[in-house]
Amino acid sequence: MPEKFYSQHKETLKKAREVIASREFWSPYPESPRAYGEDAPAGGEAAFEDRLGKRVTIDQAADHWSSGAETSAYGRDLGVTYPVASVDALLARAEVAGEDWGRAPIKHRTGVCLEILDRLSETSFEMAHAVMQTTGQSFLMAFQAGGPHALDRGLEAVAYGYDALTTLPKHMEWEKPQGKRDPLVVNKTWRLRPAGVAVTLGVSTFPTWNGYPGIFASLVTGNPVIVKPHPATIMPLALFVETGRAVLADAGFDPNTLQLAVDTADAPIAKDLVMDLRVKIVDYTGGSAFGDWLEQNATHAEVYTEKAGVNSVIIDSAADLKGVFRNLSVSMTMYGGQMCTTPQNVFVPRTGIEVGGETIAYDDVVSGLAGAIDGLLSDDDRASDILGAIKDEASLERLNAATAGHQVILESREVKNARFPEALVRTPVIVGVDGADKDAYMREMFGPVIYVVATDSTEQSLALATESARHHGAITWLVYSTDPAMQEQAEDAAVAAGVSVAFNLTGGLFVNQSAAFSDFHATGANPAGNSSLTDPAFIAKRFRVVGVRKPA
Amino acid sequence: MPEKFYSQHKETLKKAREVIASREFWSPYPESPRAYGEDAPAGGEAAFEDRLGKRVTIDQAADHWSSGAETSAYGRDLGVTYPVASVDALLARAEVAGEDWGRAPIKHRTGVCLEILDRLSETSFEMAHAVMQTTGQSFLMAFQAGGPHALDRGLEAVAYGYDALTTLPKHMEWEKPQGKRDPLVVNKTWRLRPAGVAVTLGVSTFPTWNGYPGIFASLVTGNPVIVKPHPATIMPLALFVETGRAVLADAGFDPNTLQLAVDTADAPIAKDLVMDLRVKIVDYTGGSAFGDWLEQNATHAEVYTEKAGVNSVIIDSAADLKGVFRNLSVSMTMYGGQMCTTPQNVFVPRTGIEVGGETIAYDDVVSGLAGAIDGLLSDDDRASDILGAIKDEASLERLNAATAGHQVILESREVKNARFPEALVRTPVIVGVDGADKDAYMREMFGPVIYVVATDSTEQSLALATESARHHGAITWLVYSTDPAMQEQAEDAAVAAGVSVAFNLTGGLFVNQSAAFSDFHATGANPAGNSSLTDPAFIAKRFRVVGVRKPA
Repeated sequence: MPEKFYSQHKETLKKAREVIASREFWSPYPESPRAYGEDAPAGGEAAFEDRLGKRVTIDQAADHWSSGAETSAYGRDLGVTYPVASVDALLARAEVAGEDWGRAPIKHRTGVCLEILDRLSETSFEMAHAVMQTTGQSFLMAFQAGGPHALDRGLEAVAYGYDALTTLPKHMEWEKPQGKRDPLVVNKTWRLRPAGVAVTLGVSTFPTWNGYPGIFASLVTGNPVIVKPHPATIMPLALFVETGRAVLADAGFDPNTLQLAVDTADAPIAKDLVMDLRVKIVDYTGGSAFGDWLEQNATHAEVYTEKAGVNSVIIDSAADLKGVFRNLSVSMTMYGGQMCTTPQNVFVPRTGIEVGGETIAYDDVVSGLAGAIDGLLSDDDRASDILGAIKDEASLERLNAATAGHQVILESREVKNARFPEALVRTPVIVGVDGADKDAYMREMFGPVIYVVATDSTEQSLALATESARHHGAITWLVYSTDPAMQEQAEDAAVAAGVSVAFNLTGGLFVNQSAAFSDFHATGANPAGNSSLTDPAFIAKRFRVVGVRKPA
Repeated sequence: MPEKFYSQHKETLKKAREVIASREFWSPYPESPRAYGEDAPAGGEAAFEDRLGKRVTIDQAADHWSSGAETSAYGRDLGVTYPVASVDALLARAEVAGEDWGRAPIKHRTGVCLEILDRLSETSFEMAHAVMQTTGQSFLMAFQAGGPHALDRGLEAVAYGYDALTTLPKHMEWEKPQGKRDPLVVNKTWRLRPAGVAVTLGVSTFPTWNGYPGIFASLVTGNPVIVKPHPATIMPLALFVETGRAVLADAGFDPNTLQLAVDTADAPIAKDLVMDLRVKIVDYTGGSAFGDWLEQNATHAEVYTEKAGVNSVIIDSAADLKGVFRNLSVSMTMYGGQMCTTPQNVFVPRTGIEVGGETIAYDDVVSGLAGAIDGLLSDDDRASDILGAIKDEASLERLNAATAGHQVILESREVKNARFPEALVRTPVIVGVDGADKDAYMREMFGPVIYVVATDSTEQSLALATESARHHGAITWLVYSTDPAMQEQAEDAAVAAGVSVAFNLTGGLFVNQSAAFSDFHATGANPAGNSSLTDPAFIAKRFRVVGVRKPA
């Protein structure tokens, strides 16, 4: 059966391996909902609704069943329950299951991974509702980022893993000349050895998109995986585990190769889990405090983190200022700023910016941006579609805290979601600060908070953005400049700060977007995270090579 | 000039890149002293002698000059002095030098690395004397392991680095279809970003062989390197730094791209150096205590360790028992057991072993091994050539401590080195212990200490060797068995324990030997170290990728 899965999907793997090398556009799982057929939307929604109030279909031995601390950002009562087991039981089962999985041929494991991705693709509408309801994303974002784009990222990790696993010859006869004597001949084989039990600690906002890369990287390289979702956002990763275990069972593997671990914020198990010496790999997406703790304490394991960052927009000059505002108004508001790639700080020189030979005053730049955002979100229905809902009430606290003692350029506004009246929806506040007021803006204010930072010059903007990235991390920079010398300076600053940078986006590409197979997500080179999705470093330590030598 | 270096050596690089993929035999720097011409031996010795009592030719700004705590294992008075600077000065200079080095084209950095290796190859005799005198190796081992084999390992790291740096396209035009609308077209480039300042902490026994891989891996990927040799073994790495800085200067780079740091055991600087947040990479070879400390504390840096291990021989059965003894007598005595690959524990079933259909009693196996070792080392001159000299007096203390309360199978003997009467030379002690007496043998007894461990069965031998590797690390296993089922069981146990394994060595291959381009040294999968020389994981995190996107 695993051979069958492999041969069914081998063309997909082949193309994925080509594309991670060429970095061309490719998306094997269509991002357009229309591609899935007329019945898919209703079928997916019905499947989701049918799950509410029930146990998830995961046949894992459980001490009891719990809904963890799961919430719906749209105020739905989900009531889905999940199997709960002790950390020790989870780890013991993972080690047992890992024996066969680790010894399985690479193609068998790869076939299983590809089949999981394929089956998940068939349920992307159901997943979209699960992601939407738990995270507060709009439906379209939940569909695309939670379904096809997450699957793209998972496949990308499988392709990198397959490449890494297949670079060495399995066997060779090594012959060393010995002058006049007979040569020394040694039969060599290289055995690939998985690192051991892997743990994925999920995030509350993009559980599948951020979770799949580490999970699939660990699986394809032979490690059993325990998936512990964020206690408030369990369902998306639970649906993934359900499908994954079904495929494992169909392929004749122990389904405990992939397990779900559920906890609550009051009784968290993450520390107990990762500090157990049986755990050899930890993948984490979430806040910096716990991510830093993991990097400093789980030193017995390889720890891959994607933490928080403060992203910057640097406006120096522009050819099409309206396009600048249009593009920024979208990238800064989608999902209410709850993306780790959302720009937070907009640096603008106090002396204004050059647009087509004319100087546009600082105040005009600021009011142009505020106007574009205000206009985009003026209608509650459209605003709801763009903003989604706020997942974590802490974001509201930050929204209130952000304005204290500062100039408010645009007030935050409460938006009514007609379909889900309990959803917390807020337009972003725009706060004006001075470059010197670093305490205000050089911190992550996750959620609908935008700072416009007045600086002496673009050079100072770059210096402040660099300082911010070095100390607080950053995943994206967006620079507007028509001056080639300034572009070069900005690019060098971005490289030094370890931040991916985009220039002069005014059309349909938004800086938040990171395309699998082409764009790396995060660099691993600043405090926003120690890893990059997906590069060879994300794979390399998930398995090891053991040499075997025999005289010929 | 760096272009010239690259084109001069590009065929060497090409072949190295082929060979790390094929794992065939290759050794571009000849291991036979005869290959270097008639005058080379005398010239190298004269060059070495001429250095004694003088400053090394390193033009590094110095607060003062010191010989650190350097000693000669052969009792010579070396008196070579080295530049001493503060940790802060070293780091500041490294960061400045790293700017240009990190931005240099890959081929320029590669050319510099290849030229350094090439120039070092011309002075392998001089290096051999420096390695011999400081480490206590015999001349031939010092020549081969300190010169050509170390250079092979360095070149291997350059080849892996070059491969890793050149997998991505530099640039591509990314085109995403948008249905009926025009496609989204983005110009993408990927900038490679070195991790930052690298520190190599050298070992006292094989400073160049263990040092070059990390140093060259860091250099080729664009990082400035500070080399801090072991305080008692400075000269070999200082000679390397001298040559490296000369090549850097010739190529127009800041020689501070490569710096020497010198300290003493009384005033060590390693902790201050690596805990500075400017340090992003640490390569370490040495004892487990400090290696563990580094892994747990230098969490702001990527730490690559090769620590201590307890290597095992498991004797189950043999076709040629004399060959077994002959092979073991060499591998267990060369350099007096001061190699990290030397077998320490020999597991033998109490019920004896099968040889050609006959059972050979335990006592006969033990006396056969002891007799082979005693015989090999019976002549003081030959024994001196094999054993070299003891570098660290702590090895003598271990030698004395090893016998306490245990059966001594073969006493250690003091050997007189006719040429260097002050050299500490001892034949190994062979101690007999029971498998249950784990406290005795499940610890690294670095130096001339051999344990023969009596077990209930080969299964128990494997179980004990596994337990030892899991808790105390191991780099090599050597298994003697003519039974295919037992070989398979042993191979699986080795894979689980993360230890490279050789079978039935009776000829000219010794388990201690690890051939560059083919054998990986250490696996990174047990406490003997977290890395493997050289695999992709050893390279991957030494640089990062920063994406740059511009609308087409």
